[in-house]
Amino acid sequence: MDRKQDASQDLLSEVKILIENNKILELRELLEEYHIIDIFDIMEHLEEDMKIKLFEVLPLDMAASILEESDAEFFSTILSKIDIDHRRNILELMSLDDMADILSQLHEDEREEIMELLSQEDADDVKELLIYEEESTGGIMTTGYIEINKDMTAKQAIKHMRENAQDAETIYYIYVVDNDERLVGVLSLRELITARDASIVEDLMSENIISVYVDEDREEAVRLVSKYNLIAIPVIDRQQKLKGIITVDDIIDVMEEEASEDMYKFAGTSEQEREFVEKVNPTPKDQIFSSVRARIPWLAITLIGGLISSLILSNLDFVMNPTYRSLVFFIPVVIGMGGNIGTQSSVLTVMALSNKDLEFSNVIREGIVGFITGIICSILVGIATYIFIQDINIVLIVSISLFINMILGAMIGAFMPVLFKKLDVDPSIISAPVIATALDITGIAIYIFITTILLSKIV
Amino acid sequence: MDRKQDASQDLLSEVKILIENNKILELRELLEEYHIIDIFDIMEHLEEDMKIKLFEVLPLDMAASILEESDAEFFSTILSKIDIDHRRNILELMSLDDMADILSQLHEDEREEIMELLSQEDADDVKELLIYEEESTGGIMTTGYIEINKDMTAKQAIKHMRENAQDAETIYYIYVVDNDERLVGVLSLRELITARDASIVEDLMSENIISVYVDEDREEAVRLVSKYNLIAIPVIDRQQKLKGIITVDDIIDVMEEEASEDMYKFAGTSEQEREFVEKVNPTPKDQIFSSVRARIPWLAITLIGGLISSLILSNLDFVMNPTYRSLVFFIPVVIGMGGNIGTQSSVLTVMALSNKDLEFSNVIREGIVGFITGIICSILVGIATYIFIQDINIVLIVSISLFINMILGAMIGAFMPVLFKKLDVDPSIISAPVIATALDITGIAIYIFITTILLSKIV
Repeated sequence: MDRKQDASQDLLSEVKILIENNKILELRELLEEYHIIDIFDIMEHLEEDMKIKLFEVLPLDMAASILEESDAEFFSTILSKIDIDHRRNILELMSLDDMADILSQLHEDEREEIMELLSQEDADDVKELLIYEEESTGGIMTTGYIEINKDMTAKQAIKHMRENAQDAETIYYIYVVDNDERLVGVLSLRELITARDASIVEDLMSENIISVYVDEDREEAVRLVSKYNLIAIPVIDRQQKLKGIITVDDIIDVMEEEASEDMYKFAGTSEQEREFVEKVNPTPKDQIFSSVRARIPWLAITLIGGLISSLILSNLDFVMNPTYRSLVFFIPVVIGMGGNIGTQSSVLTVMALSNKDLEFSNVIREGIVGFITGIICSILVGIATYIFIQDINIVLIVSISLFINMILGAMIGAFMPVLFKKLDVDPSIISAPVIATALDITGIAIYIFITTILLSKIV
Repeated sequence: MDRKQDASQDLLSEVKILIENNKILELRELLEEYHIIDIFDIMEHLEEDMKIKLFEVLPLDMAASILEESDAEFFSTILSKIDIDHRRNILELMSLDDMADILSQLHEDEREEIMELLSQEDADDVKELLIYEEESTGGIMTTGYIEINKDMTAKQAIKHMRENAQDAETIYYIYVVDNDERLVGVLSLRELITARDASIVEDLMSENIISVYVDEDREEAVRLVSKYNLIAIPVIDRQQKLKGIITVDDIIDVMEEEASEDMYKFAGTSEQEREFVEKVNPTPKDQIFSSVRARIPWLAITLIGGLISSLILSNLDFVMNPTYRSLVFFIPVVIGMGGNIGTQSSVLTVMALSNKDLEFSNVIREGIVGFITGIICSILVGIATYIFIQDINIVLIVSISLFINMILGAMIGAFMPVLFKKLDVDPSIISAPVIATALDITGIAIYIFITTILLSKIV
């Protein structure tokens, strides 16, 4: 990390000096040595006029790649400042899926303005890409693939591939369609270049195609690319017609998004909050209000849960009894431990559910784990309690409550995700604050129940 | 998901019938139509003797691919049952990084036995791969790459590539070395096949190489492949000598592992527990004991924290005062809400830290979020409290405690990860149970402090 950041720092100061001294040729030569991503990184740290000067110096293909990486704001600022022919030439080289993603975030009139600069064919493709939902496979696919007819020879196919390689996101898989544009096979570049010139594509291709439908959840594409170790996956409609492909770099982007999404969900906050925190220069005010908006719903739910706990506690008789007043002191440890083991059980269950179907038997398994850890913890707490207060009745009440609470905490933590899954609700919606609050309520109820029973036997 | 599982079900029953009727040729033809991963899936559901029969029917390259997917147990069971020449031929086709991963899990004598079947060259490569730690880039790299000398012509390079394509994990990047085996450039297959025959590799190659060192954390490889959209990344030693490559499919595997690892860590459990739960047929006893072992350390830490809360609570004077006895009832809501906002803040901070360097200023930002959400929640709680108990003093004590607790909860939740990062400790070690317990302690301390101050003013 340090190594790379140092390199960017050096590049940034070098670029600034060259722009200030108007050394255009040297600047272009310098930039050509660097990866597009590094150039994009330093552009984000330049003042607007320097940013535009640098962008104008870039060769067309690099300029297009820079725009592919950019967000809507960067994209429209840059494009509005350069002349219209240059604009048209750069747009022509942009990957259409990235362009569609950016255009979907622009105002409609701005979007129309850009669309008018595109060729008819590109404009049609972009229009189609704009239709699909962001979370669907259609929302992340690109139309930059190489498609050949099943009746071509290997030689024709190679010629076709070479002619179309420029616009393709990957040339490592070539997709084979029949005369109705239906996907019938796939051929790797490896297979194609090692084939004899006269071979017919239909005989070379593999008919065992792993594909996704254009309206499926994008996570299905992630699952298949990951399972079958693919570099790209074709996207088809329900008539088997080839609509696009999803390349592995976009799969990786989705995986990163989904992994952080899960963590945010678990913490009881949301995607919007994340976007603001990860953005480079949001205003602090925007950041804070987006955080408040994202968190308030979860906090409100848990607030109600907390008040229910308070209400249960207010029915507590033992506080009235001065001999057993000290039972109050053990509320945090008894309810806290149920919450902790419940959190462990629920995460374990949510993660296991994403890999295979778990049955309610898992709840029993977790109950046994709660039983064993409960015995260990309640013995330790019993000893600690005896040191605090030499009253065997209190030791018994605290230890037994903790023990039962840990068994139930583990079982409830495991039960909730399985139940959600059975009800066809995403189990990862269960967040840590919700589990904690639910287990506070049951924990207090159990503590009062055990106390009442045991005290009635003793007194 | 259903679609694919159905396909496997059909394949499984078809395979069983063919094996039972000893229809070897039909079986082989059927299997050749399926993807290796699907065949591996159904093998896991076959009895051992059927599994071996099926394996013997497979063409050598498919058999090798099946073993690449397998774990140590599957690998050694299968290999022990087939004759030695067949064994040698399959091993020769296996990818060396997968073989090294499996061999590292076998007993030493079993490993030696397998190594003796390998060619000298392969055995040396495997020995070297076995040295690297699992979490390092060396632990996931493969030696199956294509390497050419910088002085070759494009024609020589293509010839060399074709001859070595069989053993390569990817032929889409070709790595260029100098006479001392130092990595000096990289060439994509795309660039190579579009170059003129007489061109010299050194003039074609890109010198701007993104690489990792063999002893770096494997997450650095994930970061770079993801950032620069690579299909493979070369691994070099500190003398710049090329040691291996990591392909994007292995990067995806690491990403999946790390994403779940983070969730397990956050829940306060571990990798070992996960392995048992995700394994197909562990004994329930093993599962349960591995769960107990993984969770007890976290539960013990939080148990001590819970007892500290109890100890603080035992210094509580207001329980003695019958007028303010009802303050006890609000303990769950006051401390619970501090814990909830603290969990939100800590996850947000941990996730943000993985993307950029956060300063302590983030703690202030979270404090402001706590301030605003605190105002909202304490007004709501104040109203609820007034409905329960018409005592304005209690309403004030509960609302002010909740308010301060939420500000401090947010700030402590954000502070802990930043502090850990500054101390060079992985911030994701901060788990939900630990945060919950830490905030229980501060929450109770604050509640008592506020109560004592306000009661002394009132009384």
